[in-house]
Amino acid sequence: MTPYEELIAHTRETYLLAATGELLQWDQETMLPPGGIAHRSRQLGQIAGLVHERATTPRVGELIAASEAIRELSADPASDSAVNLRELRRDYDRATKIPAALAREKAEVAATSQHAWVEAREKSDFSLFRPFLEKNLELARKTAECYGWPADGEPWDALAEDFEPGMTAAGVSRVFVPLRESLRKLLGELMAGGRRPARPFEKIVMPLAAQQAFVRHVAERIGFDFSRGRLDVSAHPFCSGHDPGDIRLTTRYRDNRVGDALSSVMHEAGHGMYHQGLRPDHGGTPLGQPASLGINESQSRTWENQVGRSEPFWRWCHGELPRFFGDAAAGVSVEELYAGVNVVGPSLIRVEADEVTYNLHIMVRFELERALMAGDLAAADLPAEWNRRYKEYLDVVVPNDAQGCMQDVHWSMGAFGYFPTYTLGNLYAAQFFEKALADLPGLTDAFAAGDFSGLKRWLNQNIHAHGNRYRPADLCQRVTGKPLSPEPLLKYLAAKLKPLYGV
Amino acid sequence: MTPYEELIAHTRETYLLAATGELLQWDQETMLPPGGIAHRSRQLGQIAGLVHERATTPRVGELIAASEAIRELSADPASDSAVNLRELRRDYDRATKIPAALAREKAEVAATSQHAWVEAREKSDFSLFRPFLEKNLELARKTAECYGWPADGEPWDALAEDFEPGMTAAGVSRVFVPLRESLRKLLGELMAGGRRPARPFEKIVMPLAAQQAFVRHVAERIGFDFSRGRLDVSAHPFCSGHDPGDIRLTTRYRDNRVGDALSSVMHEAGHGMYHQGLRPDHGGTPLGQPASLGINESQSRTWENQVGRSEPFWRWCHGELPRFFGDAAAGVSVEELYAGVNVVGPSLIRVEADEVTYNLHIMVRFELERALMAGDLAAADLPAEWNRRYKEYLDVVVPNDAQGCMQDVHWSMGAFGYFPTYTLGNLYAAQFFEKALADLPGLTDAFAAGDFSGLKRWLNQNIHAHGNRYRPADLCQRVTGKPLSPEPLLKYLAAKLKPLYGV
Repeated sequence: MTPYEELIAHTRETYLLAATGELLQWDQETMLPPGGIAHRSRQLGQIAGLVHERATTPRVGELIAASEAIRELSADPASDSAVNLRELRRDYDRATKIPAALAREKAEVAATSQHAWVEAREKSDFSLFRPFLEKNLELARKTAECYGWPADGEPWDALAEDFEPGMTAAGVSRVFVPLRESLRKLLGELMAGGRRPARPFEKIVMPLAAQQAFVRHVAERIGFDFSRGRLDVSAHPFCSGHDPGDIRLTTRYRDNRVGDALSSVMHEAGHGMYHQGLRPDHGGTPLGQPASLGINESQSRTWENQVGRSEPFWRWCHGELPRFFGDAAAGVSVEELYAGVNVVGPSLIRVEADEVTYNLHIMVRFELERALMAGDLAAADLPAEWNRRYKEYLDVVVPNDAQGCMQDVHWSMGAFGYFPTYTLGNLYAAQFFEKALADLPGLTDAFAAGDFSGLKRWLNQNIHAHGNRYRPADLCQRVTGKPLSPEPLLKYLAAKLKPLYGV
Repeated sequence: MTPYEELIAHTRETYLLAATGELLQWDQETMLPPGGIAHRSRQLGQIAGLVHERATTPRVGELIAASEAIRELSADPASDSAVNLRELRRDYDRATKIPAALAREKAEVAATSQHAWVEAREKSDFSLFRPFLEKNLELARKTAECYGWPADGEPWDALAEDFEPGMTAAGVSRVFVPLRESLRKLLGELMAGGRRPARPFEKIVMPLAAQQAFVRHVAERIGFDFSRGRLDVSAHPFCSGHDPGDIRLTTRYRDNRVGDALSSVMHEAGHGMYHQGLRPDHGGTPLGQPASLGINESQSRTWENQVGRSEPFWRWCHGELPRFFGDAAAGVSVEELYAGVNVVGPSLIRVEADEVTYNLHIMVRFELERALMAGDLAAADLPAEWNRRYKEYLDVVVPNDAQGCMQDVHWSMGAFGYFPTYTLGNLYAAQFFEKALADLPGLTDAFAAGDFSGLKRWLNQNIHAHGNRYRPADLCQRVTGKPLSPEPLLKYLAAKLKPLYGV
């Protein structure tokens, strides 16, 4: 075997073991009886340790260096070998920069902090969470120092690289600041408009079994392949991508709230179709992975929003309701449903926010975590700063910290630099979809007829099949001919929402 | 750490990894989408390889030898340390005889063969299964050669040792041949008797959801703890014991055949209660494991047969039916139900066989796998030989291979030497239950009142809590004061069945 062949063989085994860890995690969220939690924690710890050991063994460094020395392997930067070497070098360097003691301390602090966060949120008492947030921040700064950042960068950049390669705080700001101003303007116009749509789903009586059958039907129709996947129930919806042949979605159901389950399933199915569309022959190598969290999120948002909140989709979907809910849906029109899934308005909770305000929620978090990482904001001042920004950006008064700065799990896990990928996903989704519409005349007419195969095929070819071949910014340029811009999202939102709000 | 402490710590990690392999297997049988099979085979192969590597590393041999040299550790052969050393020595010696490549190949072939078996059985086409059976046999013979067998033994013995320590083909024959004659005689008497009970369940309309709720209720009532376990659906019922806190049962359902699902769930719950009754502080060590497959099977048979086919059980169970099946069960009496679950007669399918003929099904398999392993029978000739013996022992004509030699999963998994443990389980069950009845006056009256806690407690104390402390033959002697004998089973069957058949 050549060094490159040995490296790839080793990497495939490492990814295979990591996929087993993912299955253990999926099972914990969906199947595990309460009595099995202690044993499962030990299993997860063991697999994580074995994966880390395999990924950081000096032999990997030797094999990468020996492969880099063979010039043909990297001559074409978009070739399979060049891409795999690019990603393996990056992952190896980053993994070996973190001392084992720091990695262990981070994992321990993350675990205890999450428990503290759950309790602090229940009691809405930030003082209980503050010492843990401070400890997480201290370790995050240490981690950033181990990774390092360019002279014109900042500590936040070092961590964000894990989630969105090439993303910097300055780069995010350049997009977010104009986006924020435009979204606030649009929000103001909509709220002052002549119409105010209502949520009609509450009128329809929806037994759980019917909801399950209905959302499964929609997931199948939009293109999620159930011969290579599943749909189960968990406390928080997620998509677990073990292998393109085994992709598992979860959702949750609430009485008479099929709108929630439907949009979460379309969202997770979007992730799922991305994973199912990755090339199986690249499985177990960097090339066979999603390009980034932002690109992954663009796929879920496309199906949740560009499709699932579109008028043509509801023209089709409205006709499917009687099969699952009988007469219960008879009194609700297509127009009511379409308007109802597009209700916009300031709110407290990110995960329940609409397409306009969602991004303002993200901006608050981005600005605060950037300041926390830079040392410009003390953890003790987080609640006041959070509340001030919610008032300023969303005109919302935060009644308590449980519904304020403690609503999300991320910071308790030490995940700083993650939040912006959600809004990047919205931006990529809009920009890709604009291009798909230009490439595929009659696309939305097909939606109205329940045919979503054109969009799926376009995404398969333009996004999924590339896997991790292009960095996010390069993929965007390549697919749309332009760098990432806020314009497509703003245009899409204004065109859809202004008529619904009588603006 | 002392060598013994290091050995135990190492063993706990090995068992933990093996439990992850078991979860992958459980998931494959219950959850895995068809597209995930290839990836899963690789995962199973990898974990099996890692487990084998850990179990056979020379350090383990050194630690066992160093611990054996410390005399106090083995002074009392029933002490924790002596038992763990006895089992670890045996396992290490056997495992080091199997090359890593063979262990890995076996795991991979077993996974793909099982799927081939499912398809071949669906199509009733033995030719689709034959090449997989041949491959499994080839690997089984290689394995037997690695283990070796005594001069007066044969290849089958080398494999059977994995399932029932001390069991040999000759030893099995010594019990089976007289048992066969007695059972055929009893069968003849019953078939010539003055009564012929019928199966009444077909009269009751049983929707699947009601069946599921009903069998879950019974499993819970007899003592299976659902906070430490699950019940799911698979093609072939089984019990997967990851950890006393996470024990998973499976069954299958057929329209209006709740009797099948009920007895399979009581059977698997019997295994499950054994696993839930193992001492958690011995988890991850040999002491915390079942004593053998035969002893494990005795626990499932006790609940399936000694309890689940008893008249007192049905006096209770009859009263539960309306809660699940409404008026549909109104026309069926306790007496009809009790007689109906005790219908005896020659049949095609082992897992549907009655308590008398079941053991004849086992004898066919034992004789055939013994010949296959010895090279006295070619895989290609299996269907003809199978059919010939069914005609001879059971007077049954086998119409096709799906209902013939492809009805069981075992050989597709490469499990040769396993089948006799089922009949050993029947023998142990009868002998243990005879003792429990003597120890616990009023036991069956409690069954009639829906109280099964007395028997469960007796089994917890007398069987489960010992785990692997005593070898099967020693456990039997210790619990019942006698060596294993066919008499309790024959007495129990005659006493129950002769009145029902008017003999």
